[in-house]
Amino acid sequence: MRLAPLLSALALAGCAQAPIQLQDMGSFHVGGREVTITGKPIKEVLFSPGGVPAKVDPNGVYQVEQMYVQYFIPQNRRGALPLLTWHGGGLSGVTYETTPDGREGWVNYFVKRGWSVYNSDAVERGRSGWAQYPDIFPGEPLFLTKENPFERFRIGAGAGSYNKDVAKMRPLPGNQFPLEGYDNFTRQVVPRWTTTDAPTIAAYTELVDKVCPCVLLVHSQAGLFGVKVAQARPDKVKALVLVEPAATGDIKDAPRLKNTPVVAIYGDYIEQDSRWPAIRGNGVKFLDAVRQAGGNADLIDLPKIGIRGNSHMMMMDRNNLAVADVIQQWLEGRNLYR
Amino acid sequence: MRLAPLLSALALAGCAQAPIQLQDMGSFHVGGREVTITGKPIKEVLFSPGGVPAKVDPNGVYQVEQMYVQYFIPQNRRGALPLLTWHGGGLSGVTYETTPDGREGWVNYFVKRGWSVYNSDAVERGRSGWAQYPDIFPGEPLFLTKENPFERFRIGAGAGSYNKDVAKMRPLPGNQFPLEGYDNFTRQVVPRWTTTDAPTIAAYTELVDKVCPCVLLVHSQAGLFGVKVAQARPDKVKALVLVEPAATGDIKDAPRLKNTPVVAIYGDYIEQDSRWPAIRGNGVKFLDAVRQAGGNADLIDLPKIGIRGNSHMMMMDRNNLAVADVIQQWLEGRNLYR
Repeated sequence: MRLAPLLSALALAGCAQAPIQLQDMGSFHVGGREVTITGKPIKEVLFSPGGVPAKVDPNGVYQVEQMYVQYFIPQNRRGALPLLTWHGGGLSGVTYETTPDGREGWVNYFVKRGWSVYNSDAVERGRSGWAQYPDIFPGEPLFLTKENPFERFRIGAGAGSYNKDVAKMRPLPGNQFPLEGYDNFTRQVVPRWTTTDAPTIAAYTELVDKVCPCVLLVHSQAGLFGVKVAQARPDKVKALVLVEPAATGDIKDAPRLKNTPVVAIYGDYIEQDSRWPAIRGNGVKFLDAVRQAGGNADLIDLPKIGIRGNSHMMMMDRNNLAVADVIQQWLEGRNLYR
Repeated sequence: MRLAPLLSALALAGCAQAPIQLQDMGSFHVGGREVTITGKPIKEVLFSPGGVPAKVDPNGVYQVEQMYVQYFIPQNRRGALPLLTWHGGGLSGVTYETTPDGREGWVNYFVKRGWSVYNSDAVERGRSGWAQYPDIFPGEPLFLTKENPFERFRIGAGAGSYNKDVAKMRPLPGNQFPLEGYDNFTRQVVPRWTTTDAPTIAAYTELVDKVCPCVLLVHSQAGLFGVKVAQARPDKVKALVLVEPAATGDIKDAPRLKNTPVVAIYGDYIEQDSRWPAIRGNGVKFLDAVRQAGGNADLIDLPKIGIRGNSHMMMMDRNNLAVADVIQQWLEGRNLYR
């Protein structure tokens, strides 16, 4: 029987060569609805120069408001439930992939730790596609300038802190966002509407109905989506990780999460920002309301546990894996890891 | 020494449990440029209901025309070079992922066979984001109705063949497109411009400069992009697989590919379509011109090698892996597999 440890070690050594071992990976779309457009003239379209023209009738039925989801199922599953990662406003699932300076992001982190990860692009973002406006979407899309996230996401020290030249950027002191990757980060920014919350929540709800019970890990704008979907499906969302939620819904609905463990995580520099004290304040009130209803709601201010310098984009910061460790430990503490 | 085969078998058995073994996976953006917008009024934007309003100045510098690329590097690399997969018009890299009816697509196929796969979303599609128009992009985006691809991609038997009810669809006889997945396929369709070829080719060229030497596998609209980029970088594109190219550029430029092995692959029902005989005819002339310049150009009509029923979306058809096998064999024949 002395052979057994040797065989086991050899088998492991053979496998250990592949850092990411997947049982499966793939993608799908969920949700959406059909909308009929009428009364428009037929167009003749040359799709490719040198191609053959085609008549395109813009009247007809369109598929809109669907949502894209990409999944990675590890071979050695240790997360008790699937982990769904929902990105913030003006971004896509790319948020959780490789960081803008080329390091591993949270998708890889959690897949390597044995979580089945479902990473989505919200409705009208990224691979979910978007619908014609004003015919179908109300309002106009919003585009962000290169400097906007630098100043608004607590990377730079307020207005005017952005500069195209990395050496001339004025970051908040000790900021962990990889400045040399900021230009790449702006390549991840996608147009967004502010009028599409209802179809977005509908699509996320359909996703939860399809793949849960699960854990939701949501960032910024998706804070609202995560809270609302967890409230609509309290039996299916077994834990909710709010990474700097931009909003958490009507406070009177907070008690609906009394059976769903919740944690909200905030980075550094909150107090010195013009908007973040109020945003965090709303989150704290929400957690209090969950707790008062008998629920389990934790608040983690990263600086208070010795993790300093985090921007709003903490999944991309230089210490992004230390922040992921905090989430991993919280999930382990909820008995969601085996 | 009798132990060695046993140990080897055990090590393999341990590893064989993970069908997809990756050394790495991740994503990045390439390319694009900066554009300055001036003279617009400042907006007050409430990003999330219940959030905190922010002033958004739409004047400033925008990052536009970048391109998203996702990569999967297998542990056991057998493809001699990276394989870059470029999708067709009105679609995104999702084209090559899971089929709309839930089977494995070509990304998984080629990764499992040991190819490093770089799957991209063209400029202004999917996770590449898009730019405001008419300020930055010329012209308007084009949206496809649910019936348009059914009729144009040789799934249905011409005009009026689409029906929302699968039982009432009128597919071309023997068609291999999974009709029960057609509704999901329409969820993959994204808006597109017809005026963005130049920035798209620029971004693809930057991708080739970053990750090649390589093999390009391109579909439909990307036929033109693949040909033009291979002509611009003949030293870096070592083989070009054209899957039903919509166009192949100016015939006088074809000889520039004399040192790049090329294959064009066409599915079924070409002759009975109103546009496909001309589209295929252009491709055949292109291959002839490459050959006349001393190049290596192959034409594969799938029905002529006994593979029948393929639509324009052959990477999703029921026999999609048989078509992938044809590509794999062609690449092996070019000494691009070890």
